[in-house]
Amino acid sequence: MTQSADLRTPLSPTPRSTLTRSKERARSERADLDAVLDAGLVCHLGVLLGGAPVVLPSIYGRDGDTLYLHGSTGAGNLRAALATDISVAVTLVDGVVYARSAFHFSMNFRSAVVHGRAVEVTEPADRMHALEVITEHAAPGAWSRVRLPNKKELAATLVLALDLTEASVKVRSGGPNDDPADIEHGGVWAGVLPVRQVWGEPIDAADLQPGLAVPGDVLERAEPGLVPAR
Amino acid sequence: MTQSADLRTPLSPTPRSTLTRSKERARSERADLDAVLDAGLVCHLGVLLGGAPVVLPSIYGRDGDTLYLHGSTGAGNLRAALATDISVAVTLVDGVVYARSAFHFSMNFRSAVVHGRAVEVTEPADRMHALEVITEHAAPGAWSRVRLPNKKELAATLVLALDLTEASVKVRSGGPNDDPADIEHGGVWAGVLPVRQVWGEPIDAADLQPGLAVPGDVLERAEPGLVPAR
Repeated sequence: MTQSADLRTPLSPTPRSTLTRSKERARSERADLDAVLDAGLVCHLGVLLGGAPVVLPSIYGRDGDTLYLHGSTGAGNLRAALATDISVAVTLVDGVVYARSAFHFSMNFRSAVVHGRAVEVTEPADRMHALEVITEHAAPGAWSRVRLPNKKELAATLVLALDLTEASVKVRSGGPNDDPADIEHGGVWAGVLPVRQVWGEPIDAADLQPGLAVPGDVLERAEPGLVPAR
Repeated sequence: MTQSADLRTPLSPTPRSTLTRSKERARSERADLDAVLDAGLVCHLGVLLGGAPVVLPSIYGRDGDTLYLHGSTGAGNLRAALATDISVAVTLVDGVVYARSAFHFSMNFRSAVVHGRAVEVTEPADRMHALEVITEHAAPGAWSRVRLPNKKELAATLVLALDLTEASVKVRSGGPNDDPADIEHGGVWAGVLPVRQVWGEPIDAADLQPGLAVPGDVLERAEPGLVPAR
């Protein structure tokens, strides 16, 4: 996340990362990709299992042009992710678009879809870095104050890296695109009902030692009902 | 949605719909599947394109044991969805689980993953019904007050049905599962930071005819910052 957007290569325009529908919604800058990936909490990982795609929710993290995924070494789905190209999607829903006609109902959203061959991260320092990136994505500021993974935990963890070269970013915003005749005809409300994720108030673990305060990194994030989640 | 859960067949325990990790999080009742699918706004559809999985966000709808998807007839991705088994995932994030150790950080979530071969819905009445189900999923109560799809719009729309037989449902809730030694050691806050989707205030379309009020189905849904989105 330290690289300047100006110096980075543009997103790759391969057939599968080129939008064929609603091209006006496409974004091609790395900064757009970064923004969507950084704003999401979970991704959906598509792997090939028994000849068919299987989609699984997962947490993830991004560092520069690399997306990190992790899971149990015993997870067949994650092992399968190493055997063929995979696809990772992150989608943020921003609103329901109400139109005058059923055909033009839509969603406002920001989405990123990444394609490529993931590699296993094997170097101990790289693995620890990847786990830090993933943990900090889910819980910014937490890594420095918790117990870090020990040898046993590291041995049980599979870490994957996916290069963020081949990706498409799509953004829909604004109101409905109704037909002129429907607009002229009138009589039907049209607009957008926004939706957003918000944080609630932190809940102490049931077995938390008495008197332990909620740390700053959690408090800063949580402002009940007011702060968009991420 | 009119069927009694008691009379319905349980979810199919095929290898790909059987959880191998964290089995205690598995749910096997149809009512659990329905609850997750009905609570989501978008799904992630996994299709096979050029031998690799591609994951795409999509709106959808459920009626009984059928999931409906739709898109443009010109969308190659949706056409590809008819050629092999597909996978559809719906995930609701409920919170970030903060643990005493990095290894036990997690997310609270509800997720459903469906597997199967989709079929194209071709009968005119079935197509119209499917589009009603999808529209009502995104915007409950809207179908009855908007202009319905005309012949041209219907001809441009591909409608898919996916049987909800082979599916897995996974739910994680509650606090962190820290190691006893870390709990005993103390000193690190642990708990859950809840997250939820909320609706904002409806925004009129820029070209809305003056004086047209926000309809009841939209107003009922929107209560700024207070009502969970779905």
